[in-house]
Amino acid sequence: MSDSTTSIAELRERMAAFVAERDWRQFHTPKNLAMSLAIEAAELMEHFQWLTPEQSRAVAQSPDRLAAAGEELADVVCYALALANELELDLSDAVRGKMAKNALKYPAERFRGRFGADDPSASG
Amino acid sequence: MSDSTTSIAELRERMAAFVAERDWRQFHTPKNLAMSLAIEAAELMEHFQWLTPEQSRAVAQSPDRLAAAGEELADVVCYALALANELELDLSDAVRGKMAKNALKYPAERFRGRFGADDPSASG
Amino acid sequence: MSDSTTSIAELRERMAAFVAERDWRQFHTPKNLAMSLAIEAAELMEHFQWLTPEQSRAVAQSPDRLAAAGEELADVVCYALALANELELDLSDAVRGKMAKNALKYPAERFRGRFGADDPSASG
Amino acid sequence: MSDSTTSIAELRERMAAFVAERDWRQFHTPKNLAMSLAIEAAELMEHFQWLTPEQSRAVAQSPDRLAAAGEELADVVCYALALANELELDLSDAVRGKMAKNALKYPAERFRGRFGADDPSASG
Repeated sequence: MSDSTTSIAELRERMAAFVAERDWRQFHTPKNLAMSLAIEAAELMEHFQWLTPEQSRAVAQSPDRLAAAGEELADVVCYALALANELELDLSDAVRGKMAKNALKYPAERFRGRFGADDPSASG
Repeated sequence: MSDSTTSIAELRERMAAFVAERDWRQFHTPKNLAMSLAIEAAELMEHFQWLTPEQSRAVAQSPDRLAAAGEELADVVCYALALANELELDLSDAVRGKMAKNALKYPAERFRGRFGADDPSASG
Repeated sequence: MSDSTTSIAELRERMAAFVAERDWRQFHTPKNLAMSLAIEAAELMEHFQWLTPEQSRAVAQSPDRLAAAGEELADVVCYALALANELELDLSDAVRGKMAKNALKYPAERFRGRFGADDPSASG
Repeated sequence: MSDSTTSIAELRERMAAFVAERDWRQFHTPKNLAMSLAIEAAELMEHFQWLTPEQSRAVAQSPDRLAAAGEELADVVCYALALANELELDLSDAVRGKMAKNALKYPAERFRGRFGADDPSASG
């Protein structure tokens, strides 16, 4: 897997170069990038819009559908990288920090197989 | 920057462990993850909702606002990692592939400072 | 049902008055309103995020959950009204026009119980 | 304006007939409808994605752009109507209730021209 040898920084730099070559930083306000990320997230969602839970899992086994969904996920990630670039934010620090916070909020032993006391998925 | 030494795979593994420890894969259908990603993208957008373009750029200089936006961006990235895990999709390949496609779609010399012929941002 | 005696215009006027009393039209650019609508749509989605299809149907029978989802749907509608106000767009004309277009795009006899040839929900 | 003579119920009934004729209620779980609404909200947002605040206001004066944005807004409203139908929720009651709640949360005299103490738009 190429993910094993690719650092976050490498992808950020590729994105920064793409934007710089087109002189697009002028349009890359954090507001516009957050909007763009949300638009791409919706396009990703579209691939699963009318599917049952089982059908949505089956997308992983369909090369065409997987490639199509993968392109939308790539768009989401590109805007996440572009936003991290504009905000000069360390993404992996932010991710590790948030996971640590979530680990405290959702202790594994208490939330195993459920989200909370009022979790509808956990109820009988 | 920690992003320089962190591979995509490392963050994916952290996410996978977090999910496995809570036995949450049962809820992690691609459909639910795409929805969750879109929800987090909207929460990120909320931090810029009423800001002018300039005010949105200024978020990078405000430590509190930056940290708050960074947490939402981390949530977005976490769901992107979880979805890549469920779909067994190489994220960096997908990102590089999409950038190559976009480089053909938007040749730098033709799209410098604009998005297209009908780009309202480019109009006089 | 109060919906039987309430015109679209009446709700639009209520929204316009609410905005005018607070001098908020200055923030109500179509861009900001479209963002706000998308944010509220995501908050609405949150009420169904981890539910199975069946659990999501059961929300209609749970007064508390229904009221909570109803508030988010109201927020969505309020921003739709505010946007129609700013754009000076007749909403019911737009809705009727779009339904007529969709009726041509999806002839009832051909799309009964399915969305299209490649509709994954229709496939055996 | 056709909005003056069109009741919410009339549009709901049109939507219900459209769905029934195609036997699509089976796909109209509240979860799917909330997702669909969010997808359409993102498509609406796309029309304003790269615009400055001023350019986004100018959309109201451009017949083509206005019609295009109006179609997306109509899609949003259609899914809002479909969801109200599935949840058997009175939309105008929900809207009036939410406006009353917001009127208490944002008293006009205190929030004139601003959103709150920490409103970045209000800060000098």
